[in-house]
Formats: sequence, structure tokens, C-alpha cells
Amino acid sequence: MGNNLLKGKKGIIFGALNDMSIAWKVAERCHEEGAQIVLTNAPVAMRMGEINNLAAKCNNAPVIGADATSMEDLENLVDKAMEHFGGKFDFVLHSIGMSLNVRKGKHYTDLNHDWMLKSMDISAVSFHKLMQICMKKDAINDWGSVLGLTYIAAQRVFPDYNEMAEAKSMLESIARSFGYHYGVSKKVRVNTISQSPTMTTAGSGVKGFSEFISFSENMSPLGNADAAACADYCVVMFSDLTRYVTMQNLFHDGGFSNTGVTQSVIEQFAKS
Amino acid sequence: MGNNLLKGKKGIIFGALNDMSIAWKVAERCHEEGAQIVLTNAPVAMRMGEINNLAAKCNNAPVIGADATSMEDLENLVDKAMEHFGGKFDFVLHSIGMSLNVRKGKHYTDLNHDWMLKSMDISAVSFHKLMQICMKKDAINDWGSVLGLTYIAAQRVFPDYNEMAEAKSMLESIARSFGYHYGVSKKVRVNTISQSPTMTTAGSGVKGFSEFISFSENMSPLGNADAAACADYCVVMFSDLTRYVTMQNLFHDGGFSNTGVTQSVIEQFAKS
Amino acid sequence: MGNNLLKGKKGIIFGALNDMSIAWKVAERCHEEGAQIVLTNAPVAMRMGEINNLAAKCNNAPVIGADATSMEDLENLVDKAMEHFGGKFDFVLHSIGMSLNVRKGKHYTDLNHDWMLKSMDISAVSFHKLMQICMKKDAINDWGSVLGLTYIAAQRVFPDYNEMAEAKSMLESIARSFGYHYGVSKKVRVNTISQSPTMTTAGSGVKGFSEFISFSENMSPLGNADAAACADYCVVMFSDLTRYVTMQNLFHDGGFSNTGVTQSVIEQFAKS
Amino acid sequence: MGNNLLKGKKGIIFGALNDMSIAWKVAERCHEEGAQIVLTNAPVAMRMGEINNLAAKCNNAPVIGADATSMEDLENLVDKAMEHFGGKFDFVLHSIGMSLNVRKGKHYTDLNHDWMLKSMDISAVSFHKLMQICMKKDAINDWGSVLGLTYIAAQRVFPDYNEMAEAKSMLESIARSFGYHYGVSKKVRVNTISQSPTMTTAGSGVKGFSEFISFSENMSPLGNADAAACADYCVVMFSDLTRYVTMQNLFHDGGFSNTGVTQSVIEQFAKS
Repeated sequence: MGNNLLKGKKGIIFGALNDMSIAWKVAERCHEEGAQIVLTNAPVAMRMGEINNLAAKCNNAPVIGADATSMEDLENLVDKAMEHFGGKFDFVLHSIGMSLNVRKGKHYTDLNHDWMLKSMDISAVSFHKLMQICMKKDAINDWGSVLGLTYIAAQRVFPDYNEMAEAKSMLESIARSFGYHYGVSKKVRVNTISQSPTMTTAGSGVKGFSEFISFSENMSPLGNADAAACADYCVVMFSDLTRYVTMQNLFHDGGFSNTGVTQSVIEQFAKS
Repeated sequence: MGNNLLKGKKGIIFGALNDMSIAWKVAERCHEEGAQIVLTNAPVAMRMGEINNLAAKCNNAPVIGADATSMEDLENLVDKAMEHFGGKFDFVLHSIGMSLNVRKGKHYTDLNHDWMLKSMDISAVSFHKLMQICMKKDAINDWGSVLGLTYIAAQRVFPDYNEMAEAKSMLESIARSFGYHYGVSKKVRVNTISQSPTMTTAGSGVKGFSEFISFSENMSPLGNADAAACADYCVVMFSDLTRYVTMQNLFHDGGFSNTGVTQSVIEQFAKS
Repeated sequence: MGNNLLKGKKGIIFGALNDMSIAWKVAERCHEEGAQIVLTNAPVAMRMGEINNLAAKCNNAPVIGADATSMEDLENLVDKAMEHFGGKFDFVLHSIGMSLNVRKGKHYTDLNHDWMLKSMDISAVSFHKLMQICMKKDAINDWGSVLGLTYIAAQRVFPDYNEMAEAKSMLESIARSFGYHYGVSKKVRVNTISQSPTMTTAGSGVKGFSEFISFSENMSPLGNADAAACADYCVVMFSDLTRYVTMQNLFHDGGFSNTGVTQSVIEQFAKS
Repeated sequence: MGNNLLKGKKGIIFGALNDMSIAWKVAERCHEEGAQIVLTNAPVAMRMGEINNLAAKCNNAPVIGADATSMEDLENLVDKAMEHFGGKFDFVLHSIGMSLNVRKGKHYTDLNHDWMLKSMDISAVSFHKLMQICMKKDAINDWGSVLGLTYIAAQRVFPDYNEMAEAKSMLESIARSFGYHYGVSKKVRVNTISQSPTMTTAGSGVKGFSEFISFSENMSPLGNADAAACADYCVVMFSDLTRYVTMQNLFHDGGFSNTGVTQSVIEQFAKS
């Protein structure tokens, strides 16, 4: 059913927890487009075992656990992936984010700052660690493509998003900074996709998330982009058709980011 | 009551229609801060005569009519102002905007394009014309300051703002472009202030404007900035304390521009 | 050689002058990806006759002359295209830009403002006219895609780009504004691609253009994106894989836009 | 010599090391404008003792050492400041930044990630810690103003700026996020000033910094803004004339941020 857009390409996909995950859809679509993949997630996330169903669907892709904050785990992952692929690979998806302060119910004005730094480590620094290892091992082919998933809270305040705003700002900065160095030395491009709020398992735990999804839906001329559409966009960014797009933050959001207000939101607001 | 921030400075202020106008407040505040001013507006706008009350309050400032689209009128204005001041001046406020298509009730998807170009001429090209004349006549002192008033519709869509979005985009571009050339040759800085929606005579005519003001109020952590606060900010930008700020679009909006959503808006939205 | 990304899709392509034109490459690639196309350009540009060679290569695509500032010509074009396609189409490329003041050698601080408005009409308002006609005739299928080509001078000053900075600012604003309305009513997306400076016939006429291309090459981690790569990116944006991307300005520039300085530029600068 | 812009206001100023420091100039100017101040810096930075000369000039301002990463030290600082002022204060300057990886000569693609997190803690999280404490102690008057100093590397890559790009991205995000909450609850505004590269003691240690200063000077239509001009801008942002500006990143850079290239840079580039 695909278009062979990723024929002959190989990549690593982080963050597929279950079939609601964006990363899950990306893996399915990459497989469909002809890519070979390696799946990875945090050992604790893999305990549910659902990722094995995904692996089975994707031509028995290897599943290699890795704590994304551990250099050792990431080195092992890249080594195993290169062994499996018989050499370098072409793309990576980083779909990792976790806020300890959100999880523990801390308000943004009452953070535990050790947790804050840990959230940065998991959600942003892991992206740097991963690329640093890939570059040192010369693991990515020229014109390869590295993607991170982000959210517009990096640019504007959404109060319930809490410290993840800082994590995403840092993640996008790492994409630019590493994108510069990886571009100059290896022609590898690095971008982030800023996705509509998506009802994943992670998202569904956030306070007031369904009201927020509905607000966002009404504030987006095309409505919220769903996980399947995001997977299509990731495929495009991994393909050779976007070789000169780098260091960008790409909004995939039905127009939300450039909409100040919609007729629909104003009407519902005026009603209340 | 002022702080002598503009002592010894001279400037031209466009766009004071009545005491609801931002330009009116700016004129009052500039006078209060020790500046000498010249007032100007379109002949048709001056017919109401209220501007003479303002002139009287401002140490009998001259009032010189000028159609801002007419090079001849603008040349006459600058000549007369220099004559009055006995030489160069230091600042200019451009507070001019008018959309023929809005006035005639045309929807954005059904514009009359001759009117659209006329709206651009009035609302944006006039800013270029004015600076071109000032530069040719070497009318502005080194380190002078030129300001235009704009709105965030230049960056994001607010459907009822219609073609004024394009006019403000063009205005802000002119500020950057002319700011470059005026900066390099004469150290004159050029900026735009992107102001909260303000209940002026112009604003009050726009469809659904009071609902929109209320939405914007709720979407701004500090609430909407009013005309008096805007006048304070203009004073600051005309003063010597902001000499290295140029080619910028400065949001004066209580935080609206960097707010994705507020608790207050989400709650009212959820209610409806 | 393509991937059938545009199989069954139909579109109109403006602006193919000769084989250096971006639009020319876009037409070739759309054809290669399975699309049917209609070609159009200004009658004066078509006089050279090269566009007929392109038409021949693209399955004998019809060539319909249209002055993009003429509502009558644009209506005729859309009517003829619908007749040819037997109904609605799916995509449009607007690759039109011309500055009278640049052509006449006027400096940015010495513009002829009638020419400036004419440049806006050709380079920006034409985009609005085209979409207004398409919407009225309900000419574009749901989830269709409209693209304009732009340049980063809309955000930052490049002195030789002159008044085209304002034209591109206005063009990008039209993309957002019309993108909102077309999205809400018909799910049609509207975007602009902000392309590296490209050595087309239009570009090659600009003063100091080859020095500038070289500066831009050195300032872009991946180097300047060329016309062929731009055509690939247009294909992606016309395909169904980018359905939720709308109202965006997409940088296709080898990383130029987010690079403050490169090692290479600093070194060459330090040498001089 | 001042204008009494800060008459009756009280504030805390971080980061005055010696008379090259921006914070030093800010302290002098705040005093000159009628403010009472408290000075603070890291104990290690205070060992040089120069800050006492500044304190003497500023009406014997108290100097209270504080490691900006220590909640205990920050609490002590705020308590002592409130004791000294006899109640709440009105403004704070955060001028703190340090990169362990830069100091140790690590390349951006070879970072020590523990150091990276420590750099974030010092340069960005400290801003959050400080505001969290101020808010809990209700230490800042309504309509107070909090400022952080930042650099455009938060938006675009400057290779030698290294991980400080991430620190500044995070700092600017904290300004937005905390600015939202502090604005809603207490009308306190929070902004960052993005300053031209400045030859401070900190700056002068960075590799290739003087070449970079020269490049930036040539790339800025008004030239680089110096520390004294930055101090003027800080005064303005602490005054009551900018009450509705919040959650903004304000470029104070002679136009650098919106300049794509200057005639001067192109010429020097073409020469080499």
C-alpha cells in the first residue's frame, strides 16, 4: 500500500508503547514504505510487552531496550542496530518525553528542581546523547535524517504543560545545534515535528487533557492532526524528498500555530 | 508629572482623531515628557476639529493636514515641520490604518483587489513614503526614532481583521527594510509596536469587536494593554534609553502573543 | 522513476520560464510522480516558447497564458483547466515574482510607489486573486494543496532584495489568511516554501547575485538547496502525506534560516 | 543625571563581577534613576572584592552572596533583601550564565552530559528557582518586573556558543512560563533581553570572541549595543512605562536579529 518512499532505508524508532503511540504508527508506516527498522523503548515501558506485537508486524524488527538517559544503553543500542543492519542506518525517531513534576502533581510555581533536571535529561538531553553517540560511531549515512517530536508549548505557554515547555524548548535547540554540526560534517539533517495534542497514553494522563484537545480542535482550521497523519509526515521527513530541510521545527497541527482565533472559538467564548 | 524623557526632542505624530485614539495619548504624553510636537492627520479626519483641542493642550502644536498616500502632502508636512522646529526632528509616530474592503463589508474571500491595493497604500506604503521623504530631506536627527503601530494579525490569523493582516505584514516589513537603510546611514531606528486590540473609534466599527476584546482580555495574563500604556511605551521608544533597538516588532499586549491558552479561556470554553 | 506520490492528482503550475526555473522542475517531477498538469505563465514570458518543450515532456500538458494580475485571465485559466481535467483539481504552484523598482534600478530608499504597488499586485495579490477564483468556482478538491514560493527576505533584511521583501511578507500573510478560510471551508491547505537563493533567470539578473549565492552557500550547513531539491519538496507538499500542514512558511534552505554564523563564514570574514 | 524613572523602586541585581559586567552598569544606572538596590553574586565571584566598590557607589547597597543554584542561598538572599528594604521589592535582574563544557574546552558534539545539566542548573533553572522563592514569599510588588539576559543563540546556531544555546532557550522558556503565572496572579512581568555580544570578562574568555564581536558589529545596522546601552534598556523595563510588556524576548542588538546580511559583510566576504 506504500509508495516505496523508504526502500532500502534503515532506522531506529524510539517510544512505541502501544498502538496509540505516534511512534507505533511511524514504525508501521516506515515498514510499509520499505524501511527496515529497529525498535527501542525504556525497559520499564517494554514490560507491557505490546511492542513485540509491533515488532512482529514489522518483519520481526529487533527490539532493544534502552534507558535514553544512559550513555551505556544508547551505545549498546547503536552497536546492536549497526550489527543488525550490517552497517550504518538512515533515520532515527526520538519520541521520548516525561515530566516527573507533572507525574507527581507539582504546580509549575512549586517545582522540585532535581526532578526538573531529571525531566530535561529524559526528554531533551537524551536527544543530544543519542546523536553524540551516532556521530562518534559514524552510524548514520550521509543525508540521513533525525527527527524529534515536540509541541508548541516550546513557543507559547499552555499552563498545564508545565515544565515540559522547557524540555521541548531545549529539545528544539538541540535539534538546531546538533543539526548544524551534523549537517556540516555528514550532511545529516535534524528536525523536530511540532504535533497537535494527541490522545496517546502519555497525553491521556494529563489533567484537563480532553478539554484541551477539544479547544485545540476548534482552534485549528483543519482540526487536530492525528497520530496516523503524523506518521505520514515523519515518513516524508525520512525520505530523500526533503534532503535540504534541516534545523527546522515543523508544525504539523492543522494550522493551529498561525491561527490567532477561529470563528468557532469566538462563538463558543461569546456564549459562555 | 513626566520625567523629562523627551526634553529637547521634537516629533511628528500622525493619527490623532479624538481622545480615544492611541496617537492622541501619545501626543499628550510626549508633550508631558518635554517634547515639542507637530500633529497631522488626513484632511477628512481633521474635519471633526477635535485635533485642535489636542493641539491647544500641547503647547499649541501646529496641525498640518496630510493625506498619507500623497507624496506632495507628505513633503509639505515635513517641510512645514522643519520650518516650525527650526531644523531636524527626532521622532515620528505612524498610526494610520484603513481597509476599504472591511469598510465596504467584503469578506476576505471576496475582496475587491483595487481596494486591497488602496488599503495597502494607506496603511503600509504611506510608512515608506514618509521615511523616504524624511531621508531625502535629511529631516531626522541621528539616533532618531520612527514608530509604526501594528497588530499581531501580521503573524497569526484573526478572521475579522481581513486584509489588514496583509497591510500590517507589509508595514512591519517596511519597518525592517527601512530600518536597515536608515540605521546604516543615519543611526535612525525604526520599529513597530504590536498593540493589544484597543477600543478606538477605528476599532469600535469592526464587526464583533467587543467580543473579541473580551476574548483577548481573557487570553492575556496581564489583560489587554490600553491606549495610555501604549503611549508610555511609545515615549520609551522615542527616548534615548532605547537607542540600539531597531527593526523590531515589539509586542505590547499583556502577554497575549506568547500565551497558547489561559486557564480562564479553557474554563469558559469548557462551559459552553 | 517516481514513487506515484501524485497518482491521480491534477494541478496547475505557474511560472515555468525555462529549464532553470524552479517551476519547470516542479512540473517535471509532478509528471514523474503521476500527476496531470496544466502549465501557465504570463503571455510575455511565454513568447520565448520554451514552455512548449516542457509541455511536451509532461504528457502534452495544456499551456494556458494568463497575466496573474488579471481576474479575467485567471478565471479563464481556471475554467480551461477544469474543462481539461474534467472537473476539480488538487494542487497549484504559484511561482511568480517581479519587482518593477528592482528592474528599473531604483534603490530601496528611492522607490517609485506606483511601481511598488504594481510589484505587490504581481508578486503577492495575484496569489489572493487566484485562490479567490478557485474558491468561488469550487475548483479545488477537498484536502487540496496550494503552494507559493517565497524567500527569507520576508523575515530579515537582505538589502539588494529591495521591495520584494514587502512582496514576500504580503505573500506569506495571504497564505496564512487564505489558508485559514480555505481550511475551514474546504480542507484545502495553503503554504509557502522559503527557498535558498536559486540561480534562475530571474535571480541571475539581480545585482551582486553570484556573490550572494556564495555567501548563502557558506552560511548554510548543507549548502544552498537547488531547484531540483525544491521540486521534490513541492511534490511532498502536494501529496497526501502532508495533509495537516497548513498556513506554514517552510524553510527549504539547507539550514540557513536557523544559522547565526558558520565556521566557514567567520574564517573568511576574519581573513579580510 | 537620571530622570527619576525608578524613584521609590527597589530591586535585586545578580551578576556584577567588575565594571565590564552588564549587571554592574545596570546597578549604576538603577541607582542613578533613584532605585534602592541589593547586589548579589556567587561567593566565588565575589572573592575578587570589586563588587564592594560598586556597592559603595550605590548608596552602600548590601552585598549578599548567593549560589544561584542553591534554594537555601536564594531564600536567604530574598529574606535579607526584604529585611533591608523593609518589605517587598519591585525588580530583579538575572545576569547569570556559565557553561562547564565551554570552560573545559569540550566540543558541542563531545559534551559531558552531567556538566551540561549543571550548566542548565546554573544558567537557566536558577531563574526558575529565584522566581519560585519570590512568589512563595510574596516578595515582589504588583506590577514588578523581572529580567533575564540572554543571547540570540537561543534561536539560531552560533557554533562556539556551544551548550549555552540550550541554556538560553531554556531561560527564555522559563521567562514565558513563569511570566504567565506571575502575571495572572500578581501582575508581575517577566522578560528577557537578548543583548549583542558584549566584551565582558565572561565573554572575553570564549574562543574567537573578538573576531565574532567584529562580525556581529558589521552585521548590525547600528553596530553592537554596548553594556551601557543595555543598562538603559533594563532601566526602561524596570520602570512603570513598560507595564504591559511581558513574556517577551526583547532584542537589544542594533538590528542584528532581523538583518540577513549587510552590504559591509557581503563586501568583506567577496574580498576573501
